[in-house]
Amino acid sequence: MFGPGDDCAQLRPWLGRPLYQTVDQVVEGVHVEWGARPAAMARKLVGRTLSDLAAAGAMPWALSWTICAPPASHRRAWLRTLAEAFLEAAERENASVIGGDISSAPEGAPVVLSCTALGVADQAAPGRSGACTGDLILVTGKLGGALRSGRHLAPQPRIAEGRRLISRYKPHAMMDLSDGLASDLPRLLRASGVGARVALDCLPLAVGLQKNLRGFESAVADGEDYELLLAMAPRTAQRAMRDPLLRRAGLVSIGVVEEQVGLRWTCDGKLLRSWRPKPWAHDFGEEEDA
Amino acid sequence: MFGPGDDCAQLRPWLGRPLYQTVDQVVEGVHVEWGARPAAMARKLVGRTLSDLAAAGAMPWALSWTICAPPASHRRAWLRTLAEAFLEAAERENASVIGGDISSAPEGAPVVLSCTALGVADQAAPGRSGACTGDLILVTGKLGGALRSGRHLAPQPRIAEGRRLISRYKPHAMMDLSDGLASDLPRLLRASGVGARVALDCLPLAVGLQKNLRGFESAVADGEDYELLLAMAPRTAQRAMRDPLLRRAGLVSIGVVEEQVGLRWTCDGKLLRSWRPKPWAHDFGEEEDA
Repeated sequence: MFGPGDDCAQLRPWLGRPLYQTVDQVVEGVHVEWGARPAAMARKLVGRTLSDLAAAGAMPWALSWTICAPPASHRRAWLRTLAEAFLEAAERENASVIGGDISSAPEGAPVVLSCTALGVADQAAPGRSGACTGDLILVTGKLGGALRSGRHLAPQPRIAEGRRLISRYKPHAMMDLSDGLASDLPRLLRASGVGARVALDCLPLAVGLQKNLRGFESAVADGEDYELLLAMAPRTAQRAMRDPLLRRAGLVSIGVVEEQVGLRWTCDGKLLRSWRPKPWAHDFGEEEDA
Repeated sequence: MFGPGDDCAQLRPWLGRPLYQTVDQVVEGVHVEWGARPAAMARKLVGRTLSDLAAAGAMPWALSWTICAPPASHRRAWLRTLAEAFLEAAERENASVIGGDISSAPEGAPVVLSCTALGVADQAAPGRSGACTGDLILVTGKLGGALRSGRHLAPQPRIAEGRRLISRYKPHAMMDLSDGLASDLPRLLRASGVGARVALDCLPLAVGLQKNLRGFESAVADGEDYELLLAMAPRTAQRAMRDPLLRRAGLVSIGVVEEQVGLRWTCDGKLLRSWRPKPWAHDFGEEEDA
């Protein structure tokens, strides 16, 4: 039997099914506040890592992780809480924890966590590069304000939704929203060599945001939504929005892919030529000063 | 095409061959000195991660890694040097780099690197738990003084040797030496439920160490050798020590597995009852003060 405690974990992949791997970090003072509770750090780590698998339509399979923590502030009880929360979050998503590494850090250093996830898919993921002119752009869930509301501490990866979308509705391109629509959508558009028009008044706003330019800015420029962003042929999109699982996840169309490159925002059908939301940057250090 | 830039890397595992995964870290001020050169950090990261695969007899396949570095001290040129050295070290071992994540760290924080490696083996690894009474205990290479000599900055993972050992000589137990014989051998013995006797005068001492108790202490208590440690039936061990590849790697017998649990040190055939080498601890912070 191989596993934690041995040098390596041994894996026996499913025959003929694609395997997906992704890696993510949670850094104290960057992705979470200084002194954040260990359970919150662990849940965020698992959630944001698995969100990448969700975008590939992959089922979480095996997780390994690293902890780098300074000695004085992070004693046994702290580590135990961290590890228990990590294991619990992994179990909730049916992922096995197959290994890890723990290192001390110099006194005063921030806690740095990393997580590598392997997932198994039924079929190949669409990636980001297949969006076509005329496709609808859709998102799940609500956008904006994840940091302010604390939602960012317990992201719910859209695993079931990602698998359903790929198995039944074949999106042309799909990714997860981690840096906000205004940062992430242009990545998808560039990879596909197309542009898009997004209707701000169609955005599903998070609770507490108002239907004005300030609310829209929060919805497109705040990061850490961990929702799915996808492009789909219009008729398929209509069917997908009626799927009970996807309807419960709030799947909604927010715009359309166009041949002309670049991302254009509209409101009440009018083009907002000079509206430029501020790009998202993780930084709890600066957030606290503001 | 999936890979760096997408949310996940897509992998197509060999059919029916076991896959091994391992994860390791390099932390500034712990595993390397403060202000260590980025190329040295990257080489050490790859070397120590792949050393775990060597112990499983696995061929490096796919690497992903994370960088967490404070902004001011680690500008573009620093990151480029780090990434180039990482890619070069991976290529030297025939491993593909399939993804990564980069995060800023608060000002003054140490650089924290992590690396996850996937390897493919021809057959299952022995693990640590199969050592039998009467087996010889063997090591590759030279032991001790890796830190003082700077060898720890460019560990040479024993990939070819690990594969050769498993494919031709079936060791009963095998692991890599990262914390020194005095820390690592007891782990193998406990996992196997046996004990051992090791002849200090048979240890292959690193250059600069003398054949006295001080030299022996360095050889068994210093970490970061990244050599292989194994237990094998005596007749197989004799054959393995004549194998040209393994002879070049300095494979040598240093002791014997015994039924009585615990680890006993001998010198000139005499048992050293009260000799207790100091256990290894990574800590460049304290090393610098000494």
